[in-house]
Amino acid sequence: MAVYTDITDAELETFLAGYDLGAPISFKGIAEGVSNSNFLLETEAGRFILTVFEHRPGDLPFFLSLMQWLAARGYPSAPPIADRQGETLGAVRGKPAALVAFLPGLSVRRPTIAHCREAGEGLGWLHVSAEGFPDRRANDLGHGAWARLADALAGAAEALKPGLAAAIRGDIDLFARQWPSGLPEGVIHADFFPDNVFFRDGRFAGAIDFYFAAWDTQAYDIGVALNAWCFEADGSFNVTAARALVDGYQRRRPLSEAEKVALPILAHGAAMRFFLTRLADWGATPDGALVRPKDPLEYERKLAVHRAAGEGGLALFGDG
Amino acid sequence: MAVYTDITDAELETFLAGYDLGAPISFKGIAEGVSNSNFLLETEAGRFILTVFEHRPGDLPFFLSLMQWLAARGYPSAPPIADRQGETLGAVRGKPAALVAFLPGLSVRRPTIAHCREAGEGLGWLHVSAEGFPDRRANDLGHGAWARLADALAGAAEALKPGLAAAIRGDIDLFARQWPSGLPEGVIHADFFPDNVFFRDGRFAGAIDFYFAAWDTQAYDIGVALNAWCFEADGSFNVTAARALVDGYQRRRPLSEAEKVALPILAHGAAMRFFLTRLADWGATPDGALVRPKDPLEYERKLAVHRAAGEGGLALFGDG
Repeated sequence: MAVYTDITDAELETFLAGYDLGAPISFKGIAEGVSNSNFLLETEAGRFILTVFEHRPGDLPFFLSLMQWLAARGYPSAPPIADRQGETLGAVRGKPAALVAFLPGLSVRRPTIAHCREAGEGLGWLHVSAEGFPDRRANDLGHGAWARLADALAGAAEALKPGLAAAIRGDIDLFARQWPSGLPEGVIHADFFPDNVFFRDGRFAGAIDFYFAAWDTQAYDIGVALNAWCFEADGSFNVTAARALVDGYQRRRPLSEAEKVALPILAHGAAMRFFLTRLADWGATPDGALVRPKDPLEYERKLAVHRAAGEGGLALFGDG
Repeated sequence: MAVYTDITDAELETFLAGYDLGAPISFKGIAEGVSNSNFLLETEAGRFILTVFEHRPGDLPFFLSLMQWLAARGYPSAPPIADRQGETLGAVRGKPAALVAFLPGLSVRRPTIAHCREAGEGLGWLHVSAEGFPDRRANDLGHGAWARLADALAGAAEALKPGLAAAIRGDIDLFARQWPSGLPEGVIHADFFPDNVFFRDGRFAGAIDFYFAAWDTQAYDIGVALNAWCFEADGSFNVTAARALVDGYQRRRPLSEAEKVALPILAHGAAMRFFLTRLADWGATPDGALVRPKDPLEYERKLAVHRAAGEGGLALFGDG
């Protein structure tokens, strides 16, 4: 959670002058977003989230176009709001900024099996809704990036836990040998964590934060979600929750046999991705930011679960 | 700004079950409050602010009763919401918590003269509205507390700036000799800063955060506000802004001659109060809190302005 950028009332007025949304009624910094600052804004025209970006401004047009595309196709998400010139990408204090509609809903901290099923359906729905989206963005945190990142962080990994650098090296070697190819690709969310998914009355009500979205293997996105939704607080993997998530997903987009077989290694790789970036962030929190970096050990434990499951994988479909 | 307490969806549901407000629709931590955690909550019944208190739970019934009193008298403020048992003081995670109505409005970061006049009127209105409130709370951060606090912090003051401990001692001696007595007393806000005051379309729209409210000299509250609203970014005191604030105040509650004469030393004392507590907080930020402690030097500079103005005071009424 972070509010890096402080916005004065005068700056807010200058920003809003470019939009056809009437006068501001209330404006509050909210404790969401790891690499950006978010504000809940109410104007005479409704409620919005103003996001000010601290990083990766070059890809913003992709993200904003995707959000427009998804909303236009009826996917429950927060569409960006265009200014008087039709632009969705604005600026506050010289930083890129975007206004999106307020999306009601509650995220859950401790998902139940039912939540996992609903989240899976929300993810499958997202993949189907994104089909045909014409823009491309390579996944710069995808499979191709991990070997180099792991090398660069080998010392930090070893410092975190003796023996970890070698275990990571072993994982990277496994991925080099066995990473699946030829699976269906498309636009993935790539950060489909519980805090980015909203529910109402226990039903999936929408997804937010598309700022890691990229072109990649669709089933890899399920791997990300399995790690984020289906581990217990004690570190164990809840196969029932995982099956519910995959089952929910297939309500919207049935998986091929090849995708099902690949899910364990895809989830293993997804755990590597979040372990590596959390390890990198652990020692590198920006000055002046009110950030609590996420503990890399959480994903170190998830990696270990995937590693221990080995070739057989997580038995997602084995005996169910 | 702070969010000390993390609330899960399950904890929120448990809390809300005690209220007659329907199901939750959205829930977001907001970046407000220095000694408590605040959340914007929307339910089927409307919008609310949930505040979870980290300190001073003993005085909460006083604050909540005052907020009820003020709202019942038409003062624009956020009334606490009673649960099914009629109680306004609840608990979340074993910490005291209160739900208040959402008050729309924008606070200003850089008040204009017009804002100062409106804020003054809002403060005068508050004092008039609080008349007759039957409960009492001593101001534990008022005039009587400063000498002891200044002694305890003499080393920290001297470390902040050589010579400061002696200057503070001189101020305390001045207050001992000249602090006014016999001025009208009542319930004061005691923290009437721009971030606790809301505007709509440039007009005063309400006040929040009554968690320092106490029984004290009413004009002392104007002193707090003069320091908070009428200093320029370069550290100079804006007499025009100050006169506007006092003028606005008198629209609701005319000041006696004795009160007018006392304003400079009351503002000097109010600067001491915030200097001392900021100095105390500067080295003592709670573990795990996302807090940016306020710089005590801001109030050290304000103290110096009051000290330099000397016996003649700040010429609030001299040639106007």
